[in-house]
Amino acid sequence: MLKDFETKKREDKGTLNTEIKELQAQLLSQQQLLMKEKLPVVVLIEGWAAAGKGSLIKEFISELDPRFYSVVSPVVLPEAEERYPFLYSYMKAIPVNGKVTFLDSGWMENVVRKYLRHEITKDEYRRRLRQVNEFERQLRDGGYVILKIFLHIDKQEQYNRLYELVEEPKTEWRVNREDLWQHKEYKRFMEAYDDFMDKTGDTIGWHILDGSRRKTAVRDALKLLVQRIDRAVQEGRYEGTTLEEDFPLREMPRLAEVDLTPSVEEEEYKKELKKLQERLSELHNVLYRKKIPVILCYEGWDAAGKGGNIRRVTYALDPRGFDVHPIASPLPHELNRHYLWRFWTRLPKTGHICIFDRTWYGRVMVERLEGFCSEKEWRRAYHEINEFERMLTDWGAVLLKFWIHIDQDIQLERFTLRENTPEKQWKITDEDWRNREKWDEYEVEVDELLQKTSTKNAPWYIIESNDKKYARLKTLRIIVKALEKACEKHFKRTME
Amino acid sequence: MLKDFETKKREDKGTLNTEIKELQAQLLSQQQLLMKEKLPVVVLIEGWAAAGKGSLIKEFISELDPRFYSVVSPVVLPEAEERYPFLYSYMKAIPVNGKVTFLDSGWMENVVRKYLRHEITKDEYRRRLRQVNEFERQLRDGGYVILKIFLHIDKQEQYNRLYELVEEPKTEWRVNREDLWQHKEYKRFMEAYDDFMDKTGDTIGWHILDGSRRKTAVRDALKLLVQRIDRAVQEGRYEGTTLEEDFPLREMPRLAEVDLTPSVEEEEYKKELKKLQERLSELHNVLYRKKIPVILCYEGWDAAGKGGNIRRVTYALDPRGFDVHPIASPLPHELNRHYLWRFWTRLPKTGHICIFDRTWYGRVMVERLEGFCSEKEWRRAYHEINEFERMLTDWGAVLLKFWIHIDQDIQLERFTLRENTPEKQWKITDEDWRNREKWDEYEVEVDELLQKTSTKNAPWYIIESNDKKYARLKTLRIIVKALEKACEKHFKRTME
Repeated sequence: MLKDFETKKREDKGTLNTEIKELQAQLLSQQQLLMKEKLPVVVLIEGWAAAGKGSLIKEFISELDPRFYSVVSPVVLPEAEERYPFLYSYMKAIPVNGKVTFLDSGWMENVVRKYLRHEITKDEYRRRLRQVNEFERQLRDGGYVILKIFLHIDKQEQYNRLYELVEEPKTEWRVNREDLWQHKEYKRFMEAYDDFMDKTGDTIGWHILDGSRRKTAVRDALKLLVQRIDRAVQEGRYEGTTLEEDFPLREMPRLAEVDLTPSVEEEEYKKELKKLQERLSELHNVLYRKKIPVILCYEGWDAAGKGGNIRRVTYALDPRGFDVHPIASPLPHELNRHYLWRFWTRLPKTGHICIFDRTWYGRVMVERLEGFCSEKEWRRAYHEINEFERMLTDWGAVLLKFWIHIDQDIQLERFTLRENTPEKQWKITDEDWRNREKWDEYEVEVDELLQKTSTKNAPWYIIESNDKKYARLKTLRIIVKALEKACEKHFKRTME
Repeated sequence: MLKDFETKKREDKGTLNTEIKELQAQLLSQQQLLMKEKLPVVVLIEGWAAAGKGSLIKEFISELDPRFYSVVSPVVLPEAEERYPFLYSYMKAIPVNGKVTFLDSGWMENVVRKYLRHEITKDEYRRRLRQVNEFERQLRDGGYVILKIFLHIDKQEQYNRLYELVEEPKTEWRVNREDLWQHKEYKRFMEAYDDFMDKTGDTIGWHILDGSRRKTAVRDALKLLVQRIDRAVQEGRYEGTTLEEDFPLREMPRLAEVDLTPSVEEEEYKKELKKLQERLSELHNVLYRKKIPVILCYEGWDAAGKGGNIRRVTYALDPRGFDVHPIASPLPHELNRHYLWRFWTRLPKTGHICIFDRTWYGRVMVERLEGFCSEKEWRRAYHEINEFERMLTDWGAVLLKFWIHIDQDIQLERFTLRENTPEKQWKITDEDWRNREKWDEYEVEVDELLQKTSTKNAPWYIIESNDKKYARLKTLRIIVKALEKACEKHFKRTME
């Protein structure tokens, strides 16, 4: 009897090995399809310590061409990355179209550990679950194929495996305190994993595989991926969902209603500017020490005075503590990723200020107007942007958005001046004239975005800039006030 | 008398302010020229703590358009960056063509502090001075305009400034232990700064400015930069020097002399492969723990079997500990920087393995052949590459370079096979056929690079790959042997 059993086991193993080889070959041939269809794939592999995540990835990649995938294992994030929103390093790691990223544990392990270690509160835990759901949905809607696997082993199996590793001098170092802690706290982890999967499985479902049967798990994981890709290739790039608005919004006027006459006298301007810059400079120090991140967004008509306005702000800042990101058309490696990727990867560290000279709102302005994205895409973008910005303010960022506003006459005046002043000619291009002709179409878009994205946490401010000096003072005043509030709030929180 | 003196001082201050404003305006107008001429500029500002480096940078940028510059202040490098060669984060920060990077202290402060803190030996200090000189020369030869400023204040002045900062609650945090330590060790720092500047001033000269006279220092610094850019614009992009070879080289055969008949039997192959992979896997663990970085470079003819060879290596490695970098044509943001930038920024962390599938040798192969760089540039590249590689091995890296070699008949055979096998068709392009026609020209180049860059520290290995299996075993054997040696050496070093 036992002999039969052993023969059967060997046969099973033989079959499994053949199946695995076949699936690996299929995966290899799918790579061409992925490239052709420009489909990016994210494979998230979570699970218990010693469950075999690493070996599983090894089997995934064993036949693949290294040009088509990368493996990311953010087990321990460098301290520097802890100073960004918690999904930052995962967003950074998403593949370009046509390629695959394998994550050897990811956002799940990150959230669960922090929660069990009491490094984040229950509230923050819930927020992160929401952010994870938003993140996964946004990626999926952006055309990413996502597969989420959890490798499960029971407590006894984990004990055996850790013991085996520790016993052997060559592998002993592979077991760290974290692993032993997890084993000790197996029950708490079990509950936490369950809770996490329970609350993050609606959009993209979880696949739990039995890690104690290695070969079977490998076969099943490969099959899941091959089938997932097959389906994606057949269905073509996912078009995404339509999303409903549910953000608390501030009421905004139509641009046409804005009175552009406000101005300021030279003398008052100089006095006030100096005062505001000095105050801003002080606040920058406080922010830096309190590690509050600040994000300032500039949008506005060509020649509205964004550059000069930004310079009046940065003049007050310590150059070591801020960055200005001028946003032009996306470069090829940016174009081949989720449209928010190039903004995620430019976020400031805590305590730093970053200024975006043009922003992610390009999605619902130029990209919409010029047809660089589909209607479904830009329609969904308002919601996605609101989520992105809520994630930033939940993180603790001060996020202010300025629409630098002028009328068409003033624009014409400034365009003409630029053309007639040799050292300003570089500032004016044919493109600017072409955009000017589309003023009315842009205005419709801007009105819409102001209505739909001026959230309580990340409001829009319309800055009347027919008089540039007035505009600069108004912007600085808004920044100073918001930063004062942030410092105070932070102070209160620390005292409680 | 005193009244006259005060009036004079006010007048001086007035003149200085005017001069500064004028220079700032000039700098602004130079930005267009820099863009037009595609000239990148690096401004390195070193100097004593509290000497005013930050304020100087503020004056530099006050009128500039943020699209054209960035400020980098790597005062404290994140731990993660300490795991790269010490110039890594500075190389990462170099600007694209047409833009300016201001460094608020840089490689000088880095080296001097580490030396004074006894974190590096005298020998390592000397090596780093050499690396700095090579780094600066390579940037200059690559067309970078470099200005190096040292802001000097005497001990009393530093005392006054630190005291003033510490006394004021708002600014107290700006003074850190490092600054106080420097003040205490003023004399030692003075000698070390002197020594550093003395030994790094030949290629790019140092400009020492008196930081105790703030406005004068600002004016002088601005003037230096404006003049430097003026000169650069007039002279056009620097063509670079010709460099002599002085590296200890290993003798290499001509490709035509290589016997390509070696082969291996299937059975022996399987047995040996398994053995080598197991050994490599063990060694990977050791390297990881000893934090030894490994760089494997693959070059070779199209269809020589690089991909399959690499896969036999990676199969033995833990996916968390290695990266494969397939090198294609440079992307725009890479093309607009020093040609080695895209390789620097892909270097492995200590303890990691990285595999380059094609490398920086593209400079002296395809770029040379297709005229993507000038003759001066590729002629100089052998030397630059030798320096780059010496820097890597001095850092502690194991660096192995493989030329995967086949003959023309075998290539034709494999090309034809690829064309006739549906799932391999993507591997063969018109480009491959075109390159094949240039075989002889390439062979001349390859022979030359093998002669000139097979240094003792970073040797080339010709891998006979008419029989792919033989090639894989040979490569693995070389890797295993080199890693064993490295682990042993490291072990010895630790024991001494």
